[in-house]
Amino acid sequence: MRGEFELIARYLAPLARGAEGAFGLTDDAALLTPPEGESLVLTVDTLVEGIHYLPDDPPGQVARKLLRVNLSDLAAMGARPLAYLLSLALPRHCEETWLAGFTAGLAEDQAAYGLDLIGGDTVGTDGPATLTLTAVGAVTPERVLRRAAAAAGDEIYVSGSLGDAALGLKVLRGELTVPDEAAGTLAARYRLPQPRIDLGRALAAAGLASAAIDVSDGLVADLGHLCDAWRLGADVEADAVPLSEPAAAALERVPELREAILTGGDDYELLFTVPAGRNRKVAELAERLDLRLTRIGRMSEDAGVRVLDAAGRRVALNAAGWTHF
Amino acid sequence: MRGEFELIARYLAPLARGAEGAFGLTDDAALLTPPEGESLVLTVDTLVEGIHYLPDDPPGQVARKLLRVNLSDLAAMGARPLAYLLSLALPRHCEETWLAGFTAGLAEDQAAYGLDLIGGDTVGTDGPATLTLTAVGAVTPERVLRRAAAAAGDEIYVSGSLGDAALGLKVLRGELTVPDEAAGTLAARYRLPQPRIDLGRALAAAGLASAAIDVSDGLVADLGHLCDAWRLGADVEADAVPLSEPAAAALERVPELREAILTGGDDYELLFTVPAGRNRKVAELAERLDLRLTRIGRMSEDAGVRVLDAAGRRVALNAAGWTHF
Repeated sequence: MRGEFELIARYLAPLARGAEGAFGLTDDAALLTPPEGESLVLTVDTLVEGIHYLPDDPPGQVARKLLRVNLSDLAAMGARPLAYLLSLALPRHCEETWLAGFTAGLAEDQAAYGLDLIGGDTVGTDGPATLTLTAVGAVTPERVLRRAAAAAGDEIYVSGSLGDAALGLKVLRGELTVPDEAAGTLAARYRLPQPRIDLGRALAAAGLASAAIDVSDGLVADLGHLCDAWRLGADVEADAVPLSEPAAAALERVPELREAILTGGDDYELLFTVPAGRNRKVAELAERLDLRLTRIGRMSEDAGVRVLDAAGRRVALNAAGWTHF
Repeated sequence: MRGEFELIARYLAPLARGAEGAFGLTDDAALLTPPEGESLVLTVDTLVEGIHYLPDDPPGQVARKLLRVNLSDLAAMGARPLAYLLSLALPRHCEETWLAGFTAGLAEDQAAYGLDLIGGDTVGTDGPATLTLTAVGAVTPERVLRRAAAAAGDEIYVSGSLGDAALGLKVLRGELTVPDEAAGTLAARYRLPQPRIDLGRALAAAGLASAAIDVSDGLVADLGHLCDAWRLGADVEADAVPLSEPAAAALERVPELREAILTGGDDYELLFTVPAGRNRKVAELAERLDLRLTRIGRMSEDAGVRVLDAAGRRVALNAAGWTHF
């Protein structure tokens, strides 16, 4: 590839055009003033080639996933996106066409989500490409969504549908065969998260959620994180967990997929709790946002996450790496 | 190593204790409110094992270098440090003792520079450790130091001494032999930058500097970056470039070291320009900060950076990778 400064000028500086404080990426650092009355929300995530994505994944899609996993964290705080910084450790054999595709993906999602690049670093590496993005959002500080204000008895809701990304990964790995159209839908859910920015902002504005988290590690694990924050527990009704049509069809054919659906990660839906008696408000919000919001269970005084079948019996789950049970 | 959550709780969460908006690193993102009347300054840098540091370098020193190269960028903007985010891509064979040493180094420098960890990510990698730090500072926006306001005729100043880090690297590589004490001094300058936070803040507060940049790529390259910002040039008097005692002694013995001193990176001093006629103000500032501030040349209408010897003849420089001549 060309020298660092040339690459920055050619591919990265155009992404910083909309942000005055980015100084065209020619200064030592960026200047950012939060909008009047708002605080900033900051989060960082790294994707490693060969671990979080495959070397031959389309670079634009890798870029958009990197941006969107960070935007999902902003959504879980009720924040709207403002800006981001990017640090790229790229192998020496990395082709310029890869960087061109990568930055084209960023440009597309910048426009969709309304944020700009404001700073970054580019270094060489002898290892796999290692891509780090720091996202900055804005939120009214009194309204920020936290993991940590749920109470026993609060209803547990989740947006969209769960398990699609886990099944999509199985399809991509050849571990699951489904009809072509379903395969495309599930694989797309794995490859490109849809951060629930509008939902997060609406929950924050309405003061409706007592706690919120994004589902990145899987329903059971992330609900466990939320419970840990207040030493609470949760009872989840397995049959209430919202499924997409392809996921429901696959589950009907292969009941063993239940575990992947409940414990698989990468869905990036929002999981949130709502004090009892406010179900109508949630239904109104779902209608206004044209987004499925499903009650899947209830917070409990008893520590631990329990998944119950239709008869109220506990479903056994043995997902590797999950230690909250 | 243990699981991600255990490592975060054990080694990283203690670094976030001082920052309310870090939520003990248990939430999806951090909340940060800039001090009244100030804007935020953001910068990110990545260090790769085997490229920016050696696998057997003490981990605490690697941590402090990672933090300090970012603080140097904040210094060049006239900002004071507030907080940072950390993303660690660690090889699976990484020992827990390494992380313990790394975070101990961070704790030491957090206390010295007055900032806290507010967020991060930890992932595995099959490649070298890749460490990314996003630093956040605060500055009064009207006073931010920029690269880009120098004018022809402005005096060029530099803090401290230059070339020590480049000579220190030569010593560490066995390419240069100097007395033991000098070797220690030079190697320390390479290993552990001293970000000029106080100088940056004082220059910003006094409105004294027309432009500022930190010397990370080397005097000639960074002065070139500064010139590029306004399509200006610079004339530097080689004999005026401030040297430490060990560097001066080495140069007297090996005149060929001149090039390494003028073009070598990693000094992390501040280079700044001052409108003509304000030399006394700079001298007063140097005295107040107890820091050497040396006039090394003058900005010019003629593009390019020229280094001149005592007779006013141009010194030829052929440093690889430097393309501003």
